[in-house]
Amino acid sequence: MAKVLSGAGLRGQVAGKTALSTVGVSGSGLTYRGYDVKDLADKCEFEEVAHLILEGDLPNETQLRDYKASLKSMRGLPQALKDVLERIPSDAHPMDVLRTGCSMLGNLEMEHSFEQQSQVTDRMLACFPSIICYWYRFSHDGVRIDVETDDDSIGAHFLHLLHGKKPSALFEKVMHVSLILYAEHEFNASTFTARVCASTLSDMHSCITGAIGSLRGPLHGGANEAAMELIESFTSPEHAEEEMMGKLARKEKIMGFGHAIYSDSDPRNAIIKHWSEKLSHEVGDTVLYPVSVRCEEVMWREKKLFCNADFFHASAYNFMQIPTKLFTPIFVMSRLTGWAAHVMEQRADNRIIRPSAEYTGEDIREVPAMDERA
Amino acid sequence: MAKVLSGAGLRGQVAGKTALSTVGVSGSGLTYRGYDVKDLADKCEFEEVAHLILEGDLPNETQLRDYKASLKSMRGLPQALKDVLERIPSDAHPMDVLRTGCSMLGNLEMEHSFEQQSQVTDRMLACFPSIICYWYRFSHDGVRIDVETDDDSIGAHFLHLLHGKKPSALFEKVMHVSLILYAEHEFNASTFTARVCASTLSDMHSCITGAIGSLRGPLHGGANEAAMELIESFTSPEHAEEEMMGKLARKEKIMGFGHAIYSDSDPRNAIIKHWSEKLSHEVGDTVLYPVSVRCEEVMWREKKLFCNADFFHASAYNFMQIPTKLFTPIFVMSRLTGWAAHVMEQRADNRIIRPSAEYTGEDIREVPAMDERA
Repeated sequence: MAKVLSGAGLRGQVAGKTALSTVGVSGSGLTYRGYDVKDLADKCEFEEVAHLILEGDLPNETQLRDYKASLKSMRGLPQALKDVLERIPSDAHPMDVLRTGCSMLGNLEMEHSFEQQSQVTDRMLACFPSIICYWYRFSHDGVRIDVETDDDSIGAHFLHLLHGKKPSALFEKVMHVSLILYAEHEFNASTFTARVCASTLSDMHSCITGAIGSLRGPLHGGANEAAMELIESFTSPEHAEEEMMGKLARKEKIMGFGHAIYSDSDPRNAIIKHWSEKLSHEVGDTVLYPVSVRCEEVMWREKKLFCNADFFHASAYNFMQIPTKLFTPIFVMSRLTGWAAHVMEQRADNRIIRPSAEYTGEDIREVPAMDERA
Repeated sequence: MAKVLSGAGLRGQVAGKTALSTVGVSGSGLTYRGYDVKDLADKCEFEEVAHLILEGDLPNETQLRDYKASLKSMRGLPQALKDVLERIPSDAHPMDVLRTGCSMLGNLEMEHSFEQQSQVTDRMLACFPSIICYWYRFSHDGVRIDVETDDDSIGAHFLHLLHGKKPSALFEKVMHVSLILYAEHEFNASTFTARVCASTLSDMHSCITGAIGSLRGPLHGGANEAAMELIESFTSPEHAEEEMMGKLARKEKIMGFGHAIYSDSDPRNAIIKHWSEKLSHEVGDTVLYPVSVRCEEVMWREKKLFCNADFFHASAYNFMQIPTKLFTPIFVMSRLTGWAAHVMEQRADNRIIRPSAEYTGEDIREVPAMDERA
């Protein structure tokens, strides 16, 4: 007989093994393959961390140079994919655009065998910024951009395509940090989606397409977009305090605080907060950063709720002039590394994921004739 | 602390509740909302069963007429979707085509709120045959077909688009039976994918796109295609017997037999076998059906392995001149009902599905400087 689990949503239930990360383990917060995310965000570029997650080790100088050169060479989009992106309207959900772009890529460049898994993953890492920016610039600005730039990093490539010019060194650095922070997070719902799909031995594009669809859900991705809507509605720290107190009194849901796994703090918050402050000074902001700090103070004082990774990402992205609707697609560009690594891990030691259900429906009954139905 | 489960793949672990079906419960085999699948396949059209699964009750005559009229009115495809399908090459995997078509549809006809969930599901039910056949006929025959027919059923619509003419009454009946048999099967991997995605409160198109990607995997869908490749390689029952004995001696994997949940027989097999035999007589077959029967005898005699739902589907579809590569897309047209009903059920009593993992990786370590890396 099937065993009835204590909680819904498989919370606290082990659904498999992973060597990729630990989340909320006492004393370390968040680690990727044993390295603290803070240490990685301080010392590494995103491409180093992608290599770590996907290949198992931090690259040495030669490996990193080769890896970045390889990614740089894969930024172009096939004409058929551009044609598809041009047919997606400007009011589409950007996550639906990425989901469709990824799925279409699978038709044009199919993963024929698992031996190609690293290659198709690198291809996606290299061209997801191209996909989202090609659609965004065509549908919003009516221009067909050249997606092949010679920028040194994935983050710089993205900002370059979005703004039509190379980003500053500070902006590029913050993109490295941001992409590192979002890269991997154990068995969250989108990653688990990718693993369930992988367990049928389906192809990488199916796994990633499914994961994008799960990250789209408002309970999962999108919290940084909601945080942006919150903070941009306040004109000063005092205004923020007043409105936040009102929201708390009315028991409204406030996004960007607390976490399903972390109980005291999100280890990613202090890191992105630091960079948001730097950007605030750089761009001459006098509102968004102080407003964000005040929101953090109020939530901690009143509810003992801490900012999660998403909250200071909102102001940081805004300072880099990234449209709010593209926040979650950046999450995809980063988390793609974790998703793909989990797919590879599932494939290496697979059993199809097929749980049971508790039946709560009708007892057995006979099909009534048509004229006997209510 | 997280609880370690006994088996991999969540086998035998309850991951949620459902009122939609029972699988392998003693004495009933497979039931949809309390009705035995055999009873439904004997007495109902697929549209009645879709209504049962999605709305909760078998329709009366008026409800069925209205439901079918509604589905009939939604067969057309937007030009942008046709443009996308025309850009998918003929050697693409048909499941990737459906995955992309479903995802693109979500960009053009987004589910803006859960109040639209029945409407967007019915739309998919009505137009998935249009999507797969429009692509198939364009990429393989170079024709742009009119996808809006006045056929009475989803199965007839599909065969009409595929062959350019209305199907016979027998072919239409077998499509009803086939679509009923594949409609729902509890927490299989593709359905569970849809539920994990739904648990983030994502949209219906994301959930179904993800489920298609999981069904694409060779451990899940595609067994009827593999069964076809097997039986069409035999020229007579005697040849089949000889070859099957050789395969068994060499311990080769033979698709279409046995089941993860059923232990004695698959309740769907006797039903589709009956209709495969009828079709065999109708089309004057003297090889495929006798060969299939012999394979069944050999597997039972030698290994006590029974045919599952997929095995006699292979010959049945072949007798209706359906290309083998479109077998699994038919599974999608049917299972879509179960997937969508599970999404609705998940939404009605939701908690995000976020299991834990057993960590097997490196202990905490410090990021080495670039020149200290191997």
